[in-house]
Amino acid sequence: MNAEIIAVGSEMLTPYRMDTNSLYLTEQLNLLGVEVIFKGIVGDNLRRIVAAAQHGLFRSDILVFVGGLGPTEDDLTREAVGEALGLKLQRDPGMVRRLEDRFASRGWKMTPNNAKQADVIEGATVLPNANGTAPGQWLCGEFDGREHILVLLPGPPHELKALFEAEVRERLRAKVPPAFLATRTLKVAMLGESLVDSRVAPIYKSFSDVETTILAGAGEIELHFKNRAGTQDAAQRRVDEVAGLVEDELDDAVYSRNGESLEQIVGYWLQMRNATLAVAESCTGGLLAERITSVSGSSRYFLGGAVVYSNQLKTDLAGVPAEMIDRHGAVSREVAAALAEGIRYRCESTLGVGITGVAGPGGGTPEKPVGVVFHAVASDGGTEVLQRNFPGDRKRIRRFASTMALDMIRKKLM
Amino acid sequence: MNAEIIAVGSEMLTPYRMDTNSLYLTEQLNLLGVEVIFKGIVGDNLRRIVAAAQHGLFRSDILVFVGGLGPTEDDLTREAVGEALGLKLQRDPGMVRRLEDRFASRGWKMTPNNAKQADVIEGATVLPNANGTAPGQWLCGEFDGREHILVLLPGPPHELKALFEAEVRERLRAKVPPAFLATRTLKVAMLGESLVDSRVAPIYKSFSDVETTILAGAGEIELHFKNRAGTQDAAQRRVDEVAGLVEDELDDAVYSRNGESLEQIVGYWLQMRNATLAVAESCTGGLLAERITSVSGSSRYFLGGAVVYSNQLKTDLAGVPAEMIDRHGAVSREVAAALAEGIRYRCESTLGVGITGVAGPGGGTPEKPVGVVFHAVASDGGTEVLQRNFPGDRKRIRRFASTMALDMIRKKLM
Repeated sequence: MNAEIIAVGSEMLTPYRMDTNSLYLTEQLNLLGVEVIFKGIVGDNLRRIVAAAQHGLFRSDILVFVGGLGPTEDDLTREAVGEALGLKLQRDPGMVRRLEDRFASRGWKMTPNNAKQADVIEGATVLPNANGTAPGQWLCGEFDGREHILVLLPGPPHELKALFEAEVRERLRAKVPPAFLATRTLKVAMLGESLVDSRVAPIYKSFSDVETTILAGAGEIELHFKNRAGTQDAAQRRVDEVAGLVEDELDDAVYSRNGESLEQIVGYWLQMRNATLAVAESCTGGLLAERITSVSGSSRYFLGGAVVYSNQLKTDLAGVPAEMIDRHGAVSREVAAALAEGIRYRCESTLGVGITGVAGPGGGTPEKPVGVVFHAVASDGGTEVLQRNFPGDRKRIRRFASTMALDMIRKKLM
Repeated sequence: MNAEIIAVGSEMLTPYRMDTNSLYLTEQLNLLGVEVIFKGIVGDNLRRIVAAAQHGLFRSDILVFVGGLGPTEDDLTREAVGEALGLKLQRDPGMVRRLEDRFASRGWKMTPNNAKQADVIEGATVLPNANGTAPGQWLCGEFDGREHILVLLPGPPHELKALFEAEVRERLRAKVPPAFLATRTLKVAMLGESLVDSRVAPIYKSFSDVETTILAGAGEIELHFKNRAGTQDAAQRRVDEVAGLVEDELDDAVYSRNGESLEQIVGYWLQMRNATLAVAESCTGGLLAERITSVSGSSRYFLGGAVVYSNQLKTDLAGVPAEMIDRHGAVSREVAAALAEGIRYRCESTLGVGITGVAGPGGGTPEKPVGVVFHAVASDGGTEVLQRNFPGDRKRIRRFASTMALDMIRKKLM
């Protein structure tokens, strides 16, 4: 069976806001074995929502509408879906009372417009919304000449997710053919997308039953494998098989086998080695520390560090000799190593990291153009320094450099 | 005139990737006075793209297709649009030669599949793509019983933008009625969305000709005003008028009048006051420094700082007395002030900032629950400390706290 998701709301037709709920819904539908074949975004306009619903009935087995269920004049999804199906709305007196109770329990009086949230499409099942006033609706039957399922869900993401999990998932599972779907994700650091693809394409192309998706960010690549088969075991066996072969091919560039982030993996390794970390950042300006501390519990292995934008602070906070900066420049192999060693000494950490580079757009020179970054990791065993020339803008170069440093830490601990 | 945007590509129907080009295109179309009334996302499937095009002809005056113009078997937009219009594709021999030359200039031989990028829909104008091999196409004429414009654009964002600007914008401007559209954006820090709305709704509701959009993030609110009128002056006058009244009402909570970010505004003020800044962060873990240094040229006013996750480093790098931490706890008004003063002293900066709090999800206590953050700004005039209890998860609390600190710096310098 296939599905489409129709997001309703004029704000998603402005340059400022987009529909993000459909990513969550797509994942949930895929897990049930349902393919999403179309997504539409339509404004708060009765005629246009009706047309979107009619086109959807022509195209898809399952139609999921998101948004437009609130109490205002602009909330038109109920009316529009009813009209597209040729069904009337009926106000549910019990639900009106529950809405009134909800308001009363907070000491408020319900304004009359709220009652429209109790309008139910003929034959629809009401789906209670534990986190908001607008309930969802579920309709299943023959429309436009064949079986369809229509689901109306509220737009706020936390309401949508809770309602989907409590009321929609099992109803759908009972209606769609049993799906035995297995997925695996591998994450790879600091290899180019075309290099990764050229090395692994011969592998995944020989698994014609497995769907492979490759997504590339600044220094990180995700490989998603998905398979359907006659049993859960068979489906899992195939994705594990292709993931295993890809992992053998890419070897230690694969840092994650179960969806963990690079920041989490670095945290695991530091804890496993009973090691602590401190960082001294110049061009990344705190991004590396921010990424490390984005992981809850990172205080167990991350001591802290210095953001040393000025040369004076490179000396004062990380102990880089001023004459070294004069001789080699602040962006140099020597200063990166001195930052790593200095912050390690100052913080008494197992590992020290130093980053210095040219994030741009200004500050580049012929010898050290925008994108040049030196990364250093200092440990008992000595200091490793790697230079890279990253492409892209300031944001991308900083992201690349912090990923490179995280990956150097990981490899040092493996 | 109205428009719709149809993004073509199966990857945008996965849980991993979404269509972001439509935000740029919506902004560009709005500036020409064209309203976007629908957005669709369709996979690489001929029959479904044809159906999307047919539904679009029924709905909209202008259809913008994005993606599906490359050389692979999955690139079907040309064929589908031709079929929906009942028009044939014709291979353009001149364009085939240009493609061959493009490959030859890089020392490559063109594979035969690339030639399909030279297939032109009957009657279409070819739009050269300076940044890629797949050209765009422009079609204007009576289809499905009325005038339509159809534009085919490549999917990679930098190709799309350059091609739109070079080839599409002026062609569209010549076809749509002259639009006199004016916009203004105000940005507001550290006021709640409902508070802002209750204070400014009476103002913007009295400007029924101006479209107002309010967007809320963690600690930042954007107010977008848009107006169409008979002349550019008249349109501008109305948005300036409503923005002026809203600004009077919200007073110094408005930090930006022309779209600048809070990080940029803080940079302007520091430069205007000839001041320098250093920061000592605990719970934000480098996020504040990262946001400040995300602005190019920030080395002119930002010296650096310390990420002091461990108590030892609060003492070693920012000079917080160990006994103060013992007595008041690391998350306290006193330690926040000492961090700000200590880092200011250590870095010899005009202003010093200290942040300490509980970002969660662990670490909360009844007296200091998750979300409690102390923010301090130290200057010649003394040290100001503000406590806040932020809602949300770790990421949101850290974002709130860094925004609060930036806003305190701004207000100190105003």
